[in-house]
Amino acid sequence: MIDTRIQGGFVVTMDGAGREIASGCVEVSAGRITHVGPAPSGAEAVHEVDASGLIVMPGLVNTHCHTSQQLARGLADDVDLLTWLHERIWPYEAALSEAEAEISALACALEQIHNGVTTLADPGGQHVDGMGRAISAAGLRAYLGQSSMDEGTGLPPSMSRSTDEVLALQDDLARRWHGAAEGRIRLSYTLRTIFNCSDALITESVARARELRTIVQMHIAELPAENEHTRATRGTSTVRHLQRIGALGPWFLGAHAVWIDGEEMGLLAQTRASVSHNVASNLRVLGLPRVADMLDHGITVGIGTDGAPANNRMSLIDEMYMASLLQKGLRGDPTVLGVRRVLAMATREGARALCWDDEIGSLEAGKAADLVVVDPRTANMIPVHDPVSALVTSLKSENVRSVMCAGRWLMRDGTITVCDEASVLAEAQRRAGEVARRAGVRTG
Amino acid sequence: MIDTRIQGGFVVTMDGAGREIASGCVEVSAGRITHVGPAPSGAEAVHEVDASGLIVMPGLVNTHCHTSQQLARGLADDVDLLTWLHERIWPYEAALSEAEAEISALACALEQIHNGVTTLADPGGQHVDGMGRAISAAGLRAYLGQSSMDEGTGLPPSMSRSTDEVLALQDDLARRWHGAAEGRIRLSYTLRTIFNCSDALITESVARARELRTIVQMHIAELPAENEHTRATRGTSTVRHLQRIGALGPWFLGAHAVWIDGEEMGLLAQTRASVSHNVASNLRVLGLPRVADMLDHGITVGIGTDGAPANNRMSLIDEMYMASLLQKGLRGDPTVLGVRRVLAMATREGARALCWDDEIGSLEAGKAADLVVVDPRTANMIPVHDPVSALVTSLKSENVRSVMCAGRWLMRDGTITVCDEASVLAEAQRRAGEVARRAGVRTG
Repeated sequence: MIDTRIQGGFVVTMDGAGREIASGCVEVSAGRITHVGPAPSGAEAVHEVDASGLIVMPGLVNTHCHTSQQLARGLADDVDLLTWLHERIWPYEAALSEAEAEISALACALEQIHNGVTTLADPGGQHVDGMGRAISAAGLRAYLGQSSMDEGTGLPPSMSRSTDEVLALQDDLARRWHGAAEGRIRLSYTLRTIFNCSDALITESVARARELRTIVQMHIAELPAENEHTRATRGTSTVRHLQRIGALGPWFLGAHAVWIDGEEMGLLAQTRASVSHNVASNLRVLGLPRVADMLDHGITVGIGTDGAPANNRMSLIDEMYMASLLQKGLRGDPTVLGVRRVLAMATREGARALCWDDEIGSLEAGKAADLVVVDPRTANMIPVHDPVSALVTSLKSENVRSVMCAGRWLMRDGTITVCDEASVLAEAQRRAGEVARRAGVRTG
Repeated sequence: MIDTRIQGGFVVTMDGAGREIASGCVEVSAGRITHVGPAPSGAEAVHEVDASGLIVMPGLVNTHCHTSQQLARGLADDVDLLTWLHERIWPYEAALSEAEAEISALACALEQIHNGVTTLADPGGQHVDGMGRAISAAGLRAYLGQSSMDEGTGLPPSMSRSTDEVLALQDDLARRWHGAAEGRIRLSYTLRTIFNCSDALITESVARARELRTIVQMHIAELPAENEHTRATRGTSTVRHLQRIGALGPWFLGAHAVWIDGEEMGLLAQTRASVSHNVASNLRVLGLPRVADMLDHGITVGIGTDGAPANNRMSLIDEMYMASLLQKGLRGDPTVLGVRRVLAMATREGARALCWDDEIGSLEAGKAADLVVVDPRTANMIPVHDPVSALVTSLKSENVRSVMCAGRWLMRDGTITVCDEASVLAEAQRRAGEVARRAGVRTG
């Protein structure tokens, strides 16, 4: 007896062999996939789901998603990075209460579910307890962590902490959240940028992450000014310095990496560090990332949305589409970042970037039951000649109909099942206005 | 007595003064806007529409939309431009029947309505009679025309025509379609590219367009190879050559213009020619367009989706978002192409590019009643701090709830009213497979 059989859909497994089954079957029991194939296993199922005409794919993996920034969507449009950070985001973060971080993360989680995301990596937020309660309630899988800073200028006083204070805070969070929600939540050591992190904080975070067998996330090579700062304070560029102090390794997920040269790509590849590519926020405030070159160097690259004030669409679906387009444009080569490669980056390769590919990133027996059911029969997808191609080039969030994480439906036929969506969003809107007023941020 | 009063929404007029009314009123009678303001006019209305919590904006203007290519969505993914044109698109176009062009244009029109588009400029298609019937039935406003070519290599025999044959075909279409559908449809002289158009065809098309008081559309400066071809055959680059033979003027709408220098931008600006910027298709197969520079030169720039096999999303909403992001990235300046400028490009400035700004592009008394009602209360838009900013940075097609063109609702509360959407899409899917088979196009 199994829990659920999803039958008759076009199954895109994203497994190592790239199996695509025109009319296939996915079976789920106790939160795990028990069978994937053209025919059912023969076991009786408690729930039968007819997926005729639909597409079944793995839950998407968002490798960079600031859940506690959701209420700041639209608070920092069309401004330069210094204004963005010092006058909009830090004041917002300093003003945010734990209850507001929770509603922010919950609203963010809802947007992730609508976009087919079942796993996200938060690269550092505020009030991790609030974030954790929200992610737990939303039923998602996630890395969470406190945005860690122990030096730098321009920080609001309430956000200034010593190295020891920051580490103690993260260690304490790790005890509460690493492995929580039946293992769906993990604690990540989350470093902001090299402007705001001492070498002691970086190396100690790496040591503790390795001991905990978790990952380190850090924003790297965001701007030329960052590399200049690292050269002035450490004598070389950010990536080279991180390699020299032993920070790079399979546990290391660097976000953005817009301003790196070929040698630095080689260092990331050799150490098996990963990169989260976040195309919209890169274009908006950072520059033109050379992702096709990174892939040529053998770097594992996942795809992320960044945070709502940097994007502002928190849609991994839109990021797939744009990531493919931008690299074609930058290279002047329409064949790079083809649809199957991009979909791999948003699933299997994203899972590898998070060191979670033993459990997620593809539809295979034994893996967690994280999956998405897509209905392509809308004006924005019809006609579909190749379903996999359509998932990258014309899929939109409105086509995501049902989302399962760890065997639990988080959305069925377009309806969120984990909370009352409308009242969460109304509360998010109200709280967002209050935080913006307290932070003294004005827009428009 | 008026027909319809839409009351209580956030009204974004996009008029010359940039009026934004937090709780406003738009009144419509006999296909025209009769009143826009914070308070109703006092006239009685047959229909009252409550727009509390919603945003009302002008119908979007898609300045480059190949309606007869809709069935080819996904037939040419991840291939270079020569393969794209010679092995995928021309065979598709040669295989297309008039009935298939009609269903293609109707499916395309549905996607446009879902994306808030009320006016589109088709830069040249196949079987204009079929396209015209579809656009007429869908209730949209459009320029239509036959894709015009009288020379060049690689063309399927059925698409090869002499200069006189091409012109006679367009003249004949002009008699049938210019001013059709109560003036919603206009005939445009639509030149493919300088690879496939003789100077005689170009200058004669311009002469006839000016006599008819309509526009000329032409794909220009798509690739470096195009400028090299023009230099080899005419002694200078495409834009310079067009200026020299008198083709440029307010009637001229050039699509793409990716490979032009500052002097050519000056020529386009001086002659008051316009450009359609199509960011997704540019990135995919053409290159990196310098739109911020074009705007600095004073060129009128509209935004277009291009065709379904080149994009593949036919969403002007997504194009606004990406157009803004790409120019910020290319310039390294987050302040360029701000939200209000981008929204103007998709409305008022797009209307000017089509020489139709006397009737459309903004919500003003006396203009045509082309408008869109947006519901921002979804996970992908909440919170909204600045509604106008949200229309560019987080709006998606799923937020477009109702669309009116010339006073007629084409969609109400998400339901298409002009046809049975599901059966049109099912037919489009079936016919798309048949055309691809006849054309011998294989994907995947």
